[in-house]
Amino acid sequence: MSRYALLLEYDGSEFNGWQRQSGGPTIQASVEKALRTFTRQKHLQVTGSGRTDAGVHARGQVAHFECETLPDDAFQRLVKALNGLLPPTVAVRATAQVQENFHARYDARLRRYHYYVSTEPLALERNRRLVIYPPPDFERMNRACALLIGNQHFGAFCRTRSATVNRICSIRRAQWEPEAHSGCWRFVVEADRFLHGMVRALVGTLLEIGRGKRSVQDMKRILATQDRRESGVAAPAYGLVLEHVTYDTPIFGGDN
Amino acid sequence: MSRYALLLEYDGSEFNGWQRQSGGPTIQASVEKALRTFTRQKHLQVTGSGRTDAGVHARGQVAHFECETLPDDAFQRLVKALNGLLPPTVAVRATAQVQENFHARYDARLRRYHYYVSTEPLALERNRRLVIYPPPDFERMNRACALLIGNQHFGAFCRTRSATVNRICSIRRAQWEPEAHSGCWRFVVEADRFLHGMVRALVGTLLEIGRGKRSVQDMKRILATQDRRESGVAAPAYGLVLEHVTYDTPIFGGDN
Repeated sequence: MSRYALLLEYDGSEFNGWQRQSGGPTIQASVEKALRTFTRQKHLQVTGSGRTDAGVHARGQVAHFECETLPDDAFQRLVKALNGLLPPTVAVRATAQVQENFHARYDARLRRYHYYVSTEPLALERNRRLVIYPPPDFERMNRACALLIGNQHFGAFCRTRSATVNRICSIRRAQWEPEAHSGCWRFVVEADRFLHGMVRALVGTLLEIGRGKRSVQDMKRILATQDRRESGVAAPAYGLVLEHVTYDTPIFGGDN
Repeated sequence: MSRYALLLEYDGSEFNGWQRQSGGPTIQASVEKALRTFTRQKHLQVTGSGRTDAGVHARGQVAHFECETLPDDAFQRLVKALNGLLPPTVAVRATAQVQENFHARYDARLRRYHYYVSTEPLALERNRRLVIYPPPDFERMNRACALLIGNQHFGAFCRTRSATVNRICSIRRAQWEPEAHSGCWRFVVEADRFLHGMVRALVGTLLEIGRGKRSVQDMKRILATQDRRESGVAAPAYGLVLEHVTYDTPIFGGDN
């Protein structure tokens, strides 16, 4: 047996999220199906670095699977073969053989998400970017972002029905950045872990601050309540992309 | 009567090109329909800076129309009202009142197109970027690009059935540039004017040079023939975006 890792990109809009389940297609099930076809190993399972919700996209999801060791030539063909078997909404960008004890979820040190918005009307990226008009005060939002940094209880930004007990996360980076195209901005957030619905709840709350509906200092108060009812309405899933997962040792060469 | 200009973004994949015609929906017809509804002026017509082909996108198309002068409040509402009336595949990004003799096509000084490619598998931008694998030699392609600069006859890159008589264009800039995401590149080309199918024929030919099927110097020979049969297969429309049109005086404020 050997263990392998995959670097995955996907358009979440046509899936019921990452995790295998009975209701509708999932990314995990699509990847498992392609791998089982290619390897002819029926019980192969795929573990992702985290479960992206329905509608959430990824450019840098990492997953691992274990199977009978692939001959060199089969491993060389893996990327191309999987992309031929997968729907066009899922792409394998790279593969790597990893150590037997590598775990895509437990070994992940840092996850980076981007949330994409535009303050101007859109046609080309209409399914990938939230239009917010009139423009919010990004400088004000960034002052609220500064309050998110560090090791804190993020219960106020965790979906109420989540079974996750530990709600402490360490946010290393949180900021709104302008992009090259006029009116385009993205929220960049990096943490050791994220709770269910956390980034979308953070974005929704920050937008309320940026529109003057809440004060910057309100962010401090919301965090202290540890109560989801105190934070803002979740921003829609289609603006959110899992961009990168960092491990102690780069897995795919380059900066991945 | 007054004359107004529009800055338009559109997803060309669901249209039969810019120009109004009988076969299928066009961008020009959609914009005219929305404007006629908003202004209640039945014979209003829209003139674009150029006719993008079926499947080609735009982020910076400029168009003008003439109509009975809009009251100030109607003009203020124009962007929002048109975006409410247009399909989600077309967006008005800005409007401006222009001089009575302004002409979106004749007054355009420079047009900039981008052609987007990726040397790695894609899922998120699969309808907006051509996947080219294995990666071509971009440095070699850029040496061929240098031969395109200047005032030349581009008959070898003009669709055979085109009725355009003057086939001299002045290319000011032509180069392949890497983008922020791994494997993503774009071809940037600026000229005073472009012939029918010209950018797609240029990209197709450059890719053949980048793959070693043709020499860099072959570009010189092809140009000299003025014969479309000598250049390469046109690259698909979905990678091409009209990014910007420049006029002597900026129309919409900012850099537009």
